[in-house]
This record gives sequence, C-alpha cells and structure tokens, in this order.
Amino acid sequence: MKGIRLLIVGSEVTNGFTLDKNTNFFARELYKNGFTVLESRIIRDNVSSILNALSDYSLTGDFIIMSGGLGPTDDDLAVDVLAEFTGSRAVIHEASEHRVRDFFAKRASHTRTSAGFSLDRALRQARIVEGCEVLHNPVGLAPAMFFPSIPLVSLPGFPREIEGIWPQVLQAIEQSMAEKTETTEVSLWAISESGLSASMQVPSELEFGVHALPFGTRLFLRASNNDRSILHSFGQSILDRFPGHTAENPLLEFIEYLKKTGRTMTTAESCTGGLGAKLLTDIPGVSAVYPGSIVAYANSVKENLLGVSAATLDTFGAVSHQTAKEMARGALSVTGGQISISITGIAGPDGGSDEKPVGTVYIGIADSREEHAMAGKFFFPFGRDIFRNASIHTAFLALYQKYVYYNGNLDSWLHSDFGKNFTFQE
Amino acid sequence: MKGIRLLIVGSEVTNGFTLDKNTNFFARELYKNGFTVLESRIIRDNVSSILNALSDYSLTGDFIIMSGGLGPTDDDLAVDVLAEFTGSRAVIHEASEHRVRDFFAKRASHTRTSAGFSLDRALRQARIVEGCEVLHNPVGLAPAMFFPSIPLVSLPGFPREIEGIWPQVLQAIEQSMAEKTETTEVSLWAISESGLSASMQVPSELEFGVHALPFGTRLFLRASNNDRSILHSFGQSILDRFPGHTAENPLLEFIEYLKKTGRTMTTAESCTGGLGAKLLTDIPGVSAVYPGSIVAYANSVKENLLGVSAATLDTFGAVSHQTAKEMARGALSVTGGQISISITGIAGPDGGSDEKPVGTVYIGIADSREEHAMAGKFFFPFGRDIFRNASIHTAFLALYQKYVYYNGNLDSWLHSDFGKNFTFQE
Repeated sequence: MKGIRLLIVGSEVTNGFTLDKNTNFFARELYKNGFTVLESRIIRDNVSSILNALSDYSLTGDFIIMSGGLGPTDDDLAVDVLAEFTGSRAVIHEASEHRVRDFFAKRASHTRTSAGFSLDRALRQARIVEGCEVLHNPVGLAPAMFFPSIPLVSLPGFPREIEGIWPQVLQAIEQSMAEKTETTEVSLWAISESGLSASMQVPSELEFGVHALPFGTRLFLRASNNDRSILHSFGQSILDRFPGHTAENPLLEFIEYLKKTGRTMTTAESCTGGLGAKLLTDIPGVSAVYPGSIVAYANSVKENLLGVSAATLDTFGAVSHQTAKEMARGALSVTGGQISISITGIAGPDGGSDEKPVGTVYIGIADSREEHAMAGKFFFPFGRDIFRNASIHTAFLALYQKYVYYNGNLDSWLHSDFGKNFTFQE
Repeated sequence: MKGIRLLIVGSEVTNGFTLDKNTNFFARELYKNGFTVLESRIIRDNVSSILNALSDYSLTGDFIIMSGGLGPTDDDLAVDVLAEFTGSRAVIHEASEHRVRDFFAKRASHTRTSAGFSLDRALRQARIVEGCEVLHNPVGLAPAMFFPSIPLVSLPGFPREIEGIWPQVLQAIEQSMAEKTETTEVSLWAISESGLSASMQVPSELEFGVHALPFGTRLFLRASNNDRSILHSFGQSILDRFPGHTAENPLLEFIEYLKKTGRTMTTAESCTGGLGAKLLTDIPGVSAVYPGSIVAYANSVKENLLGVSAATLDTFGAVSHQTAKEMARGALSVTGGQISISITGIAGPDGGSDEKPVGTVYIGIADSREEHAMAGKFFFPFGRDIFRNASIHTAFLALYQKYVYYNGNLDSWLHSDFGKNFTFQE
C-alpha cells in the first residue's frame, strides 16, 4: 500500500524556536482516516534542502504533504521551489490578489500603524505555481496548492490555517490513493495500559496502538486486512467490557448535565492548585454552571475559608478522607455552587511519609441537595505533573459517573469498578 | 560548516499517538550551544526505514543524533540495526545487566504485581553494539551509545532520559565537530516583535530569530562569523534598552523576593479562572509564600466572597478598574495573603461590547502593608488561550517590576514604560 510522507519546512523549527505540532496533526488525522504516514522530514528554509527532499520523496510515488514556506518574507520559498521542481513558473492568483488587497484596505481603515506589514510583501502570498489546483485558505491569505501528478499538496505552516484547509487536503488524498484502512479509537478512563492488556485479546486481524490519557488509556485500532466487521465487533466488546469508562470527554458530558438540570458546580483544590478551575474555564460558556472556586493550598485557608475543623486537621491531617469531605462541603457554602469536588494530596517532591507517600491523593464530592459528602483515596506516584493531571481527571470522571452514567443509581455506582473507591466513611 | 541531523524513531509518532518533543529539545539545546540542525527525520520502527535514513545521513559526514528504539519490546530495533549498519554485533553490557537485575529485585520487594513487566524483556535493554562508547543513562535502564567514527549517538526516546544523558551527548558532539558558533538569548517581557524591530538595528554580523513569549518576545542572536565582541555588545545594548523587561523568569524572581522578605501572595482570578493559581503551584515549595486563592468567575462570588460592592458592579461593570481593585483587596482579607493580583476581563468568544471588546482585561494589585490598590487596563485580542496566558504573565511581570526591579521606588515604576499602565484612579 502507498503511504504519505510529510515535509515540514522552516528554519524556526530546526533552530528550536518553534515546536513542530504539524507532524502530529497530520499523523493523527491521517491515521484516523485510514492512511499511513511513513515519514516526516523537518528541514530548513533553503532551496537545495527543499529540492533534495522533494526528489527523494517523489521517487517513492507516495503522497506528499508539505507545510510552510508560503508566507510573505524572502525566506518563504515554497512557490519558487515548486515551480522549479515541476518545470513551471510562479504566477499571480487573481482571486487571492483581490483578497490581499481587500484585507489591506480594511486594515488601513481600522488602524493607524502599518508597522511590520506592507502590501507589496503580502502580495507575495497571492502567488501560485501555474497549473496547480488551488485549495482555498479560509483563515489566511496564502492559497494552498495541489499537484495531482506528483501527488503533492503545499500548505501554509500555521496550524489554524492548516486546519481550515484540511477537508480539501483529505479530498485530494482520497482522490489520489486507492486504499484506506478502517480505524476506530476508544478512550478508556481510569483503565491502565496493563489493565487493558490483561482483559483483552486483540484479534490477529487488528493492529492496535495505545496512548496515555491524563488518567487512563486511549486505544487505537485498525483492520490490517480492512475487515470492518471484526473492527467494529471488537470495538464494541471493549465498550461493553468497561461501562462508564469510555466517554470521549467525561467533563463535557457532566457540564451538559449541569446545563440541562440548571445546577452548578465548584471546586476546592489543594495539591492541584487551580488546575481544575483552569480546565473548567477552558470551556467557553462554562460561567452558566460554574460560579468560581477556592484554591486552598495552606491549612489556614482550608480552616478559615472552607471551614475544615481544626480537630480534623489535627487528628487526620490535611491529606485525609475527612479533610477532603469537609473541603468539598465548605466549597458549597462559600461559592454557592451545588455540587463540588475537592482534591487534597501530596504532589511532591517533598512532603511524603511512610503512611502517606508522595502520590497519595483524596478526592471528595459533596452535593447540596443530597446533603452528603464522600471521598476516595488514589495513588499516582508518577511525578508532580502527571500526579496533578491524573488527580483532577479522576475527580472529573467521578462527577461524570455519579451524575451522568449512573445518574439516579448511587448504589450501582458505589459498587462499580471505579465508583467503589468512594465511601461516606473511610 | 558541518551540521547535525536528527533521527526520531517511533511508529507511535508517525501514527500520531505521541507528539514529538525531542526534535525541539535537541534543536533548542544545539542552537544555544552554537550548533546547527540541518534536518530531523521522523520514521517508523522498521529495519529498512532506519537503515535507509542512516545511509543517507552518513554520506553527509554530519553528526547524527538518533532517539528511540532502545526499549524492551520487539519493536525496539535500534541495537540490532546499528549492529548491522556498523558491521558489528549486539552484546550484553554487563554494568547495565546488573542495573536491570537490581531494579527488578527492588521492584519485587515493593509490589505484588508484575503485570506488563518481565525481567527477560527488560534485559533486552542491557544490550549494546560491540565496540561502541557507552553513555550512562542516569534515569532509565537502557544505556546510550556513541559511535565516533560515523559520528552518531543513539539515545532512548523518553524526554526525561534524554535530558539525563544530554551533557554526555554535548561532549561527544564537541569532540567530533571542529567549530561552534557563539550565541545568546534574551527574554523581553511586554515587548512585541514589532516593538523590538522598531527599536533595534541588528548588526549585519549577527543572525537573529524571535519566538513569542506568553507576553513578549524571546530574541535569539548568533554571530555568523563568530565575532564574540559584537554579539556581546549588541546583547548588552538590548538589555540596556529595556530595563525591567529582561528577567529570565519574572515570577520566580518575585517568589524569591517573597521568601526573602517572609511575605505571602494570593490571586483573585475571573477570566483566567485558575490559570494563575495553576502556574504558581507548578513551582515546588511555593506553599511557603502562597496560602491559596479565589477563582471568582461569577459576579455572585466577586460580591459575596471577595466583597466587591454591588454598586461597583452596577456602575462600572465586572470588567473595570474599580472591580479589579476591589477584587485584589478582597483576596487579601479572604485568604490572609499580603500581596495580591486580580484579573478580570473578557476572554471571548462572547461577552464583548463596543466599549469593552473581547480581549479587554484589567489587572489589579493590592498590598496589605502599603494599604493601597491599583489597576491597569490591557488589550489582548488574540483568542481565548493567548488572552489568558498574556493576562496572567502581565500580572506576574507587574509583581516582578513593582517588588523586585523597582523595589522601594514606586514612583519610578509608575513612570516606566510598562508600570505607567497602572494607576490608583482610572
């Protein structure tokens, strides 16, 4: 089967100023759509480097996706190099020229400065290689180009522009490549890679790959001989095996529940220190269901603001089942939220003990209507960053399972694989 | 001049399961150390792909850095392929075998399960190519290998392991490459790329590149003819031109100030919704100076918890100079912190108006000892993510300048380029 080869052009990447995310975007999208990326080359803005890579690649007959080199500066060489490579010439694309001129006319009416921009330079972006198929760029000024006979598409380097053009690129690939492979993906929250391996036997007709989630595993499946029925029946068996663990995005589903029921939520974070609030407020429009929250890093804030009792802190410590429950209850009364999660644990590198080593975390849930609070203990001894991400996503999964998946059936949830971590009394 | 070529081996990257960050790590480090990366190839775990890339690369005489393929699974092919490529054979490296056996012995005494691990598999990681120079891996089990005659180093794929081995890699490169170029880097907080271009004329002997900071610009300089004196005098002129803007990490310097003076800080965040608290608690040991903070997303929390007056919210709105100051004052009394920042703005996509468009943000600062509060207005109309990062880093820069750079001279700060954005009354 023919594959796809990527060519990322930009000295800002080889000099380390910019992290290349385009390879990953192309690779993910192409895998999902049933195509195989064989290679990605990241090279400098340099005529001979680009020509060398193009000759190497074109000998294979694979589909080439090139990104970068379509900007307005003298370093942007893609049009000229592709003209040379195809034995054609660079010409002005009229529709693009109009777009550039319109853009500059509008811009002039809104701002006084022209620092860093010039119409002459921008008009470089209206150039194409004569004879190419033009792909419309809905986000930026430079059009993309498709050369069916190589086959090759040339795209800008900016991720947002690539995303805008992407549907046309997929069409161009489908037009050029005979075969594609059936694929599917499943998110398995709170299921480790080894937990997954232990409970599944992947049929030999399927290839699989895994990727770590913040707390769980994402499973990628593809039918090596394109057998759609085995792919779908095995995918379904995984969904059946892990009920309540396979939501695409547990937090978003919980937010939808809140919107539908008119309820609100809040958080009381110690060790995750605002990460939960940050992830919540990443979601546009969350203000309708989320009034705000408390970061209670020090015991003084847990006690004075959240109302955790001094006796609890003395007897059980800040990292305990009791404190987690009292933090969750306190967050309800302080913020006016109706459902709350609390997180208190030891992120490290310091602060661990034999009884409560670094990586220990308690997650509390309180509900103003049900008038109860519960908490669960978890252990993520994988460094500060993974610890904090795993902790907050555990809390989000708990909210999703309790309120969405097991909604109205608390007892079933508290007896499920994951829900049984939570108890009213330790 | 000879350059460096990178070879990233891993089907998890070409399939899009994993974002390659190694190219960027190598490229940044090598640029900083005066070397030039000519190309990075990302290829699949496949014998012929690896051999093809090695033969291409070795014809150039450039230094090759290969990462990936040293793990315990059958997909990990680096040792076997390098043995074939060098006409040598794979052998056990005794010191590494001892490390693997020790690791397994210790592990067995701490855990009951051996799911997903086996000693036989792990011993694959003690294999090397006969005749290579072994580079010690202080983080993981697989040693790295150096082949001076190619020249090539073969490294594991995990970023943390690569970082651990990196000093030995730099030594190997310096031993193999005659020349390196002098380079320097400067962070310019609150200075835009166009603001920078307008005020500097880069000498023709220097190459330069820029990279966007969350709020500002990072400038990379390198002496094309290796003229150290021009590099250093131009670098110094940039530092002199932007006093108070060039700290490597303004937040860390402010945290050091707090530790030295025994003071504490807190935050009251609306539009940044916990991002500030998250960035603060990314710093191990920050608990000594940071008791916690308030995320006040809804007006109800601003009013009831932070004590912003209803009259202020009615008259001036939640996104205003007045509200920012009252939020900052409220955070001090609620959390017991001594210095506070507040952030209230319109992240978008909705919520903007003609008077206060999406991207408008007010940043407040209050101080319990100085008994004052001030605020400044900023405008970052660049999408939700950049808006939130720019806002919080603006607040951190304000703390750094007020308390560290201009410490004790409030008047000078309030008359400086950046400080003049802040006023007691709007």
